[in-house]
Amino acid sequence: MARPFLFGIVVLRIAQVAPLVESVPPRLYGGTERVVAYLTDELVRQGHQVTLFATGDSITSARLVAAWPEALRFSGSGYDDLAPHIMMLEELASRADEFDVVHFPMVQRLDGVHLTTLHGRLDIPELVPLFEMFADMPLVSISDAQRDPLPEAGWIGTVHHGLPRTLLDFHPEPGGYLAFLGRISPEKRVDRAIAIAIACGQRLRIAAKVDRADRTYFEQEIRPLLDHPLIEFTGEIADAQKEEFLGGASALLFPIDWPEPFGMVMIEALACGVPVVAFRHGSVPEVIDDGATGFIVESLEDAIAATRRVPTLDRRRCRAAFERRFDVSRMAADYLRLYEELLARRRFASGAA
Amino acid sequence: MARPFLFGIVVLRIAQVAPLVESVPPRLYGGTERVVAYLTDELVRQGHQVTLFATGDSITSARLVAAWPEALRFSGSGYDDLAPHIMMLEELASRADEFDVVHFPMVQRLDGVHLTTLHGRLDIPELVPLFEMFADMPLVSISDAQRDPLPEAGWIGTVHHGLPRTLLDFHPEPGGYLAFLGRISPEKRVDRAIAIAIACGQRLRIAAKVDRADRTYFEQEIRPLLDHPLIEFTGEIADAQKEEFLGGASALLFPIDWPEPFGMVMIEALACGVPVVAFRHGSVPEVIDDGATGFIVESLEDAIAATRRVPTLDRRRCRAAFERRFDVSRMAADYLRLYEELLARRRFASGAA
Repeated sequence: MARPFLFGIVVLRIAQVAPLVESVPPRLYGGTERVVAYLTDELVRQGHQVTLFATGDSITSARLVAAWPEALRFSGSGYDDLAPHIMMLEELASRADEFDVVHFPMVQRLDGVHLTTLHGRLDIPELVPLFEMFADMPLVSISDAQRDPLPEAGWIGTVHHGLPRTLLDFHPEPGGYLAFLGRISPEKRVDRAIAIAIACGQRLRIAAKVDRADRTYFEQEIRPLLDHPLIEFTGEIADAQKEEFLGGASALLFPIDWPEPFGMVMIEALACGVPVVAFRHGSVPEVIDDGATGFIVESLEDAIAATRRVPTLDRRRCRAAFERRFDVSRMAADYLRLYEELLARRRFASGAA
Repeated sequence: MARPFLFGIVVLRIAQVAPLVESVPPRLYGGTERVVAYLTDELVRQGHQVTLFATGDSITSARLVAAWPEALRFSGSGYDDLAPHIMMLEELASRADEFDVVHFPMVQRLDGVHLTTLHGRLDIPELVPLFEMFADMPLVSISDAQRDPLPEAGWIGTVHHGLPRTLLDFHPEPGGYLAFLGRISPEKRVDRAIAIAIACGQRLRIAAKVDRADRTYFEQEIRPLLDHPLIEFTGEIADAQKEEFLGGASALLFPIDWPEPFGMVMIEALACGVPVVAFRHGSVPEVIDDGATGFIVESLEDAIAATRRVPTLDRRRCRAAFERRFDVSRMAADYLRLYEELLARRRFASGAA
């Protein structure tokens, strides 16, 4: 397999595939598309030939193949989100020989070297037999904890997410509020964030998306809690507003009640120098260093006590942990190592090693 | 291709594939799974070797491959209905050489002779480019009207649905009520059925499923209309109750407001000898003979007038139309003709004709 060299590195021809629900990066909320954006741009920056399969309203330094004109979340009929994905995979399959490696965000067979990063929760009964059947499919987890329900799947590595180092600036001084950022849904437990803030007598600013599926939950369970002088609810915020919102917080509250696969907002907070008070679920212990970059708690009582102790933490240490562990170049290096490993396996299998 | 003969007919090895949301036949509502059940049993009755890919709680005279233990509607987690379907198609692909022809209810590529019956509405923007890309995919429509949004897709025929002749008995005498049977949703317009019944001063019995997606619509728009002495609402009814329910009606009201792809309940009514008052949309003019087996109307006013004229129609003529046009043996014959045509094409293409 002849591959070009550039200033001493092997240039890989990489296809990055994104879901079509959001653009890359997403206009608003959208973890998977955001990670694909960061990884793609970093691989281009490092000199690789990257082709991004995504919606036409995506913004990228890679070559863009517009698999659908616009983010389905905004342009789709809502009746068939699957059809555009099928078309994208069909197009990709017909061009598989243009790429050394294809990186999917969903399970997909392909002739040629490919791998799939699973971005979602995996504690879903239907997935157990699926991944037994597709045990030969190379999979990447975004935390070790994410693998728990499917220990027998074809895992080849865990790659924690990363952010561009300059995306969010360090904010040395906390403002006078706690922050909750993300989605309103039962597993995110914004109700606990509200209870913590009120118990501590601190302001809580909530910036969160409400999906249509969670509208009833929001109206019935959450809306009544918002009517309190310490609580301020904003809707979904754009990327541009995130730094001001997070950076000014004394702490990010992350009172989740589900097996969080990664939790991007935790590293966004760390990038701003903001400690995280998080419940012990899923990826949390892999991301937060308890007592250093935040507190890991197991109950509401713990969480209230921890939130009161936040001023004892050093915001510079949060930023330093971000730079060391969650920078995009580390993420790209991890993926490049996996790409090379799969390419080596393929060369070995085909006897061309 | 060597194929066994049985009493003079060519025995085909046919794989029938069903969606996994319901069993085959469905316990309650479920048009696609019902048609697959009728067709499968009729093909077996005619001597073909039929293998049914469906859920394990299906009941069939064919060989059953249980692609998932139970109907997903009742057993699934609700988080990933796609996974069991992917597994089924993977299993089928690995066994494709066991079958002369594979009959899908969804679009699917396969090595070997295969075709897909599209059961749903097709006026969905995402489908236009999909079917351009898959224009070589042999498709069957369940009415000519269903094709309107996708005239350029790979249509090979229209096959109207059929029912076993003995499934529903002829009921010569009408009871004292109108019937509405199916689903409560905005496009089914049960509100119009209620308005028609009240305007005519006739009882209306409604037997209908309310999907979770339609729960708000039902509570807000429909529930208040049910509180009237002429209106009687039952929930979803099982197959066994259908004949009593339909057979006793003086007419079936079918006041739809969408491009109905087929409308199984219309032929179920005809089988019982019950005329249909239907709005002119989708398949309606292909199924109902206006002035003979029912009335096709264009407005609420028309519908009320037509419902008053129902006693002028002959219930025997409805039953006769059913037997002539919507019997399962006619449906099976139509499909067998298409299977043979595709097999002949394949033989011709491979030069083995």
